[in-house]
Amino acid sequence: MEKVNQLKAHLSDIIHLRYATSVLGWDQQTMMPPGGASARAEQLATLSKLAHQMFVADETGKLLQDAAAETADADYDSDAAAMVRVVQHDFDLATRVPTDLVEELARTTSHAHEIWAKAREAADFAAFAPTLEKIIDLKRQEAEALGYEDRIYDALLDQYEPNMKTADVERLFNELREELVPFVAQIFDNLDAVDTAPIKQNFDTEKQKAFGLKVIEQLGYDMKRGRQDPAVHPFTTSFSINDVRITTRYQEDWLPASLFGSIHEAGHAFYELGSDQSLEGTWLAGGTSLGVHESQSRMWENIVGRSRGFWKVFYPDLQAHYPQQLGSVSLEAFYKAINMVYRSLVRVEADEVTYNLHIMLRFELENDLLEGKVAVKDLRDAWNDKMQSYLGITPPDDGKNGVLQDVHWSSGLMGYFPTYSLGNFLSVQYWDKALQDVPSIPAEIEKGNFEPLMTWLVENIHVYGRKYWPAELTERVTGEAIQVRSFMRYLKDKYTDVYGL
Amino acid sequence: MEKVNQLKAHLSDIIHLRYATSVLGWDQQTMMPPGGASARAEQLATLSKLAHQMFVADETGKLLQDAAAETADADYDSDAAAMVRVVQHDFDLATRVPTDLVEELARTTSHAHEIWAKAREAADFAAFAPTLEKIIDLKRQEAEALGYEDRIYDALLDQYEPNMKTADVERLFNELREELVPFVAQIFDNLDAVDTAPIKQNFDTEKQKAFGLKVIEQLGYDMKRGRQDPAVHPFTTSFSINDVRITTRYQEDWLPASLFGSIHEAGHAFYELGSDQSLEGTWLAGGTSLGVHESQSRMWENIVGRSRGFWKVFYPDLQAHYPQQLGSVSLEAFYKAINMVYRSLVRVEADEVTYNLHIMLRFELENDLLEGKVAVKDLRDAWNDKMQSYLGITPPDDGKNGVLQDVHWSSGLMGYFPTYSLGNFLSVQYWDKALQDVPSIPAEIEKGNFEPLMTWLVENIHVYGRKYWPAELTERVTGEAIQVRSFMRYLKDKYTDVYGL
Repeated sequence: MEKVNQLKAHLSDIIHLRYATSVLGWDQQTMMPPGGASARAEQLATLSKLAHQMFVADETGKLLQDAAAETADADYDSDAAAMVRVVQHDFDLATRVPTDLVEELARTTSHAHEIWAKAREAADFAAFAPTLEKIIDLKRQEAEALGYEDRIYDALLDQYEPNMKTADVERLFNELREELVPFVAQIFDNLDAVDTAPIKQNFDTEKQKAFGLKVIEQLGYDMKRGRQDPAVHPFTTSFSINDVRITTRYQEDWLPASLFGSIHEAGHAFYELGSDQSLEGTWLAGGTSLGVHESQSRMWENIVGRSRGFWKVFYPDLQAHYPQQLGSVSLEAFYKAINMVYRSLVRVEADEVTYNLHIMLRFELENDLLEGKVAVKDLRDAWNDKMQSYLGITPPDDGKNGVLQDVHWSSGLMGYFPTYSLGNFLSVQYWDKALQDVPSIPAEIEKGNFEPLMTWLVENIHVYGRKYWPAELTERVTGEAIQVRSFMRYLKDKYTDVYGL
Repeated sequence: MEKVNQLKAHLSDIIHLRYATSVLGWDQQTMMPPGGASARAEQLATLSKLAHQMFVADETGKLLQDAAAETADADYDSDAAAMVRVVQHDFDLATRVPTDLVEELARTTSHAHEIWAKAREAADFAAFAPTLEKIIDLKRQEAEALGYEDRIYDALLDQYEPNMKTADVERLFNELREELVPFVAQIFDNLDAVDTAPIKQNFDTEKQKAFGLKVIEQLGYDMKRGRQDPAVHPFTTSFSINDVRITTRYQEDWLPASLFGSIHEAGHAFYELGSDQSLEGTWLAGGTSLGVHESQSRMWENIVGRSRGFWKVFYPDLQAHYPQQLGSVSLEAFYKAINMVYRSLVRVEADEVTYNLHIMLRFELENDLLEGKVAVKDLRDAWNDKMQSYLGITPPDDGKNGVLQDVHWSSGLMGYFPTYSLGNFLSVQYWDKALQDVPSIPAEIEKGNFEPLMTWLVENIHVYGRKYWPAELTERVTGEAIQVRSFMRYLKDKYTDVYGL
């Protein structure tokens, strides 16, 4: 496979540049003193530009063509064939958009960030509207350049969830809406059934840190191949499949922030760390899509981390860390508190039950904006109407509680939101299949042994890196396509019990 | 200055790549989990390669030629003229050595590091000798490619101390040897005059950290433009002139390691942080040579940090940190202990008085090796003979106490050592001039006010970045060339008092 190896060698410099960009980004958000900010922005811009230039170069196209010819008859499951098709997909995405448009998008969104931050602070949607209008116009141009068959949104969605179609997401959300909206209303009528006081006390952050580290290490996070640091916005980042770092945020008056945040990010990290070692430094290392990535983080955070079995293991230790706060709170009361449902106006604070309603709202509005069905000037009203219809609440402001709350649109990230929900749906599908294959998983978790679950995830999902498209992977793993049924059943079972419905 | 601006723009990507390389190097030595090591080495190699390729490209040569023509009549002191001459110097160094040789040097020294580390551990010089022979052969080829008029060593020295000649260093060392060797012997006869016990107790490292940070912040290290982290080998690194980070090493049983290590690195950082803001992101930011850099670190570490006036300010606080260890140790006893002289076999542990003898030895041996006057097989004996002659001691082994102790030769760093001594000589020359200009400096230091010294250093040295060659800078600042006289006078005054000679 001479041509494939030439392509690999050519890509390896680009991969190193991208990893270097990630190191600079990680440092920027965890370690960098404020004085470094302005130079760092320039360094990041240069590294991204060079990596992009090297990737879209004619040489890549030629090498890719040769490698494609060489692998034309290769086994679909071979690393060589997989690499060629994934690189081809990324190459098409990267080369179809004219450089002028790429640069205008970068300039506009970089400028937009500050305008958005100020508008959000002032809860003044009108101050951000003209910028959003420009971004949507540019995203439309980008989608046209990328190309699509059915819906304009397809082109954008494909960047985050390769091969997923808007119509499929719509179908999933329609099904979800029908069942979830009335179920949420039912829970909202019974909110008193769960006492949330236990997790709203004062929790020393040093102890949160110590306890959180202990938990993720026991789950399987290896400190020889990663580290955890505080950051304002928690994230996971990779510099190799053997150096995957996570960050978390500590809130003294809100225990779940760091606790479940750490488990969530560790879930992302497990996926990256689980790529087969032969994929190190190749285009196939990492995760296949944002949706599959989110399935891993949400499985560890919610299905595992917010289960009774999990807390049978860890609760005595947490109580020992906080005897005053939790000494007299029963395991059952604690379990219910960490699974509380509430009328949140803010997506990032939303519970497991209502979270997907927030996503659905954004997906619908993004489509309506791109297709011209909702004008930017009417976006705020459309947002508030949907909040009322799905969650029964109307935002008191357009800032952090309303239409301006998310950073995504100001960054030009449209088509990204649905991957959160796809991840939630997939998390239950994969979990169900893991239990079917290894029925002892829940019992082992109750003994503090997470290895059977981790082994199943590594062997069935992680090890493949980007070799299979998300839909292929799900079909291979579960024998069926992504669906909402399993997720809704999981929610209903769990929350009917938690809220005694 | 259109052409100068074009050159500047072309260089800016290279500068960003170099800073990115530094970020990756810093992370490697301070934060990186072991799993990241192998990928990190590849990333660093790629970034260095790309930066080198972009710098030696024909485009740089053309832009440089045009910029040189444009600045032919420009004021010598202008930033434009300075940039052109500094870039020209670096471009010549980078382009004269054939790529094949650059790569063979990189390969050989990368391989040599492990061989050296094992040989050092086993104190087995013969195990490293063949590798050293190869390195010396390659360094000879490199020097020939770089070119020189008088001595082969000139070509290598110029990489670290631009325009400095071997014959000048030799002249300085001859003068030093004559005065210093008998003075050291005199001190060695009176070692009992200083009790070293106070600094050899057990010092909690958390308190060392807290106290050390307090000290460097009071000296002027701004945590908004830098940070300090632990590292095995302390160093200073820049990612911008507004993000200059230092590292230090804590030894529980040896207080000076972190204390004076921190002050030393802060001294380097002050130089980098002091570049005029207009030099940010340009080829002129940073320090003009390793020697001038070392003059700054050694001034803060030794002349300031090991002075009576300095400890009048900080000693009560240090005693408060360690009441049990230092509560009954007088300021005078502490002052003498931190200025103790001893028969050290190891350069990095050597005191201020004997340090330059270690450097002189290495400088002489490097010249003899390159000029074929000493064969590698005889290096160990030559080393031991000189140790006996300069310091009156013979290493008991060839490993960490002998000829294999330093990492430099295995890394191909020849011509680097003398810059340590040049820095020591310059530190006193600059200090003398500062006091002549601002006589209140010592009195202000005794009051804990380091601003007058810092201001003088910034205005006379730091602000220029790389605009002037080291010899020019010294001439501008002090009105004379580098000399040994001031340094010897400083040593004699100080140590005649400390040892009551």
